[in-house]
Amino acid sequence: MLMSQQFASTRKDVSEEEVSVNAQLLTKAGYVEKVMAGVYAFLPLGLRVLRNIEEVVREEMDAAGGQELLMPALHPKEYWEATGRWGGLDVLFKVPSQHGGREYALGPSHEEIVVPLAQKFIHSYRDLPQYVYQIQSKFRDEPRAKSGILRGREFMMKDLYSFHVDEDDMHAYYDVMKIAYSNVFTRCGLNAIETEASGGTFSEFSHEYQVVTESGEDIIFTCECGYAVNREIAKVQSGDECPLCKKGVINEHKAIEVGNIFSLHRKYSDPFKLRYTDESGVQQPVYMGCYGIGISRLMGAVVEVHHDDKGIVWPEGLAPYQVHVVQLGDDEDVVKSTQTLIKKLDKVGVSYMYDDRKLSAGAMFADADLIGAPHRVVVSDRSLKNGGVEHTVRSSGDSKVIDIAQLVKEL
Amino acid sequence: MLMSQQFASTRKDVSEEEVSVNAQLLTKAGYVEKVMAGVYAFLPLGLRVLRNIEEVVREEMDAAGGQELLMPALHPKEYWEATGRWGGLDVLFKVPSQHGGREYALGPSHEEIVVPLAQKFIHSYRDLPQYVYQIQSKFRDEPRAKSGILRGREFMMKDLYSFHVDEDDMHAYYDVMKIAYSNVFTRCGLNAIETEASGGTFSEFSHEYQVVTESGEDIIFTCECGYAVNREIAKVQSGDECPLCKKGVINEHKAIEVGNIFSLHRKYSDPFKLRYTDESGVQQPVYMGCYGIGISRLMGAVVEVHHDDKGIVWPEGLAPYQVHVVQLGDDEDVVKSTQTLIKKLDKVGVSYMYDDRKLSAGAMFADADLIGAPHRVVVSDRSLKNGGVEHTVRSSGDSKVIDIAQLVKEL
Repeated sequence: MLMSQQFASTRKDVSEEEVSVNAQLLTKAGYVEKVMAGVYAFLPLGLRVLRNIEEVVREEMDAAGGQELLMPALHPKEYWEATGRWGGLDVLFKVPSQHGGREYALGPSHEEIVVPLAQKFIHSYRDLPQYVYQIQSKFRDEPRAKSGILRGREFMMKDLYSFHVDEDDMHAYYDVMKIAYSNVFTRCGLNAIETEASGGTFSEFSHEYQVVTESGEDIIFTCECGYAVNREIAKVQSGDECPLCKKGVINEHKAIEVGNIFSLHRKYSDPFKLRYTDESGVQQPVYMGCYGIGISRLMGAVVEVHHDDKGIVWPEGLAPYQVHVVQLGDDEDVVKSTQTLIKKLDKVGVSYMYDDRKLSAGAMFADADLIGAPHRVVVSDRSLKNGGVEHTVRSSGDSKVIDIAQLVKEL
Repeated sequence: MLMSQQFASTRKDVSEEEVSVNAQLLTKAGYVEKVMAGVYAFLPLGLRVLRNIEEVVREEMDAAGGQELLMPALHPKEYWEATGRWGGLDVLFKVPSQHGGREYALGPSHEEIVVPLAQKFIHSYRDLPQYVYQIQSKFRDEPRAKSGILRGREFMMKDLYSFHVDEDDMHAYYDVMKIAYSNVFTRCGLNAIETEASGGTFSEFSHEYQVVTESGEDIIFTCECGYAVNREIAKVQSGDECPLCKKGVINEHKAIEVGNIFSLHRKYSDPFKLRYTDESGVQQPVYMGCYGIGISRLMGAVVEVHHDDKGIVWPEGLAPYQVHVVQLGDDEDVVKSTQTLIKKLDKVGVSYMYDDRKLSAGAMFADADLIGAPHRVVVSDRSLKNGGVEHTVRSSGDSKVIDIAQLVKEL
């Protein structure tokens, strides 16, 4: 991509309203643009990052046996009434139709859709277990939405639902998902702490994945021994805000929840009478689990963790492109060497942005740092005199002049 | 994928309500499942087809200079008021918030979002032209929705918006899009007729892409000379329902609109005052075009056109997988040859479904025909005795016994 032709450029005039670091940086760098509070457009660069995160999640869900499908956002009211959540969930958007007085729910979650769907296909023990997931936009009527893409009224989620013959199988898959989740967050450059959390009345088993950062809206306690717990349930368990672990020194942190896993037991299968016939011909209830990852929130969390005073520092796997090529000046040698470089990058399939805007070196370097691709490569008279191009690693700041062929080999 | 482990199977008990051929076949074959009228879930097979169509569209839009982004479904009311469409569009879903009396629109189209967005980035003639598109769910409060995935209350769309310095540039890009659209539909196995259509008051230039089929809701007239026109405007132009072309024999057809292209002129840029500074420093209005393809509707149209009495007959590029492998019986040779076949398919990267369900040959063949992959390959005692596996082409019915290595080479 030529930077001069990009639809969205870096911006200096970002609204003061954007108080969160993720929204400030992502807006300035041209990744997202606020449409209204809690609702963002993902610009071409932002969509590339979102797709990279989706791909990491998709690979790990597929590896755990997940089958991807796509459920709608518009839900029948009667399914939400069946589970008691039509009146019971204050963040549920209710959409009236102008025809015939109908009302729909706008899905903040898909238990109410996936269970009736599973009912069409799950009849016998032979049809179990099943694991289905989707990556899709969710909606929540949030009273406040001031954390950029960390808490949206519309946001991208991966939600996986599992169906089991019994509790044991449900618990076994819960452990499979723990590993998958750990893989996802590690690949996204996040240290997400598996934290005990409230599972509601139905569940002794619920964990959140929490990323420690100052902008977090949750409070978690971690113990030296490895145990971590959300303050919400530490309160419930101990009667005050002191956590329960006695095995080591307790620390308190602000954190962002980037994922959660629940054993649903029969909470949603019972209202819809989702049952199967076992080996001896007897009807049995289906046990379920659900497992969420906030894809767009994860993008925001990565920015909260991976930035410095100059801009974003993307982990390699998530960056919109790997190399930011800056051409300084118009000298024949510079132009020729830049063309050689990008042809070689094309050939080996390394993605790049090519800054052809002919601005001052300072302005182009500032944009490269702000946007945060892992590698900056500057082609200039000086670099060519010194034997090649100047390669700077965004995360460490390490810089060296290197021959083009050698650089492409290293990338 | 092992067919025995699929979440969704073929179904015989499809509701009589599903009157359309596309919904009947796609539901029976396990591609989609109706959640309510006009709202469908895309099952794993269906999502694969949807993704294949998306990829064709994405490639052609990228080739025409399009930059992909992702806008939200939830829109601020004030933008729709600015264009006069808040009160003027009867299919607009209006979503009340439970907090603070706010109301949102649920996007049936994105002019109201893309123009304020473009305003952040388009300032000078140097910033033009721009072409941005998205592939995203749209919502329409349809009074009736009885055509399966041809007319949905929630549906997948590609919408591209172009921004130009003047009318000439707008018209020139209109012709670029005509070629891109022709490529898309040809690659999807559709003969889509470029049909003159109503562009509303603002536009002499509007075309629909119409696929002739009995289930179409539109009526078009085509002339031998190549001219085609929607009945709606033939009426307006001629005062009755006779079309205007005098160059040849006129035919009347039912047809499905799978895409449309509009010259928007200043219809949406004016209300938002989207302007740019020209070379001489003067403020000028931006001209726009918009170009839609109904991704999920296109999938339905392909089924309406490409099926026979046994099921769907997918064009190669859209099929959820290329080969449907049927293993007949459990003899050691059959098992071994099937394993050899699927390993070879894996190696060359040809996608396949493996029917390992051990049902009767008739039941498995019926499902293969219903699902409609381009190639069926049967491994049986008999085929092995005859020198290989039995390869049947779904579209022609041509069948032959062929050596496995040779078959894989041909695929």
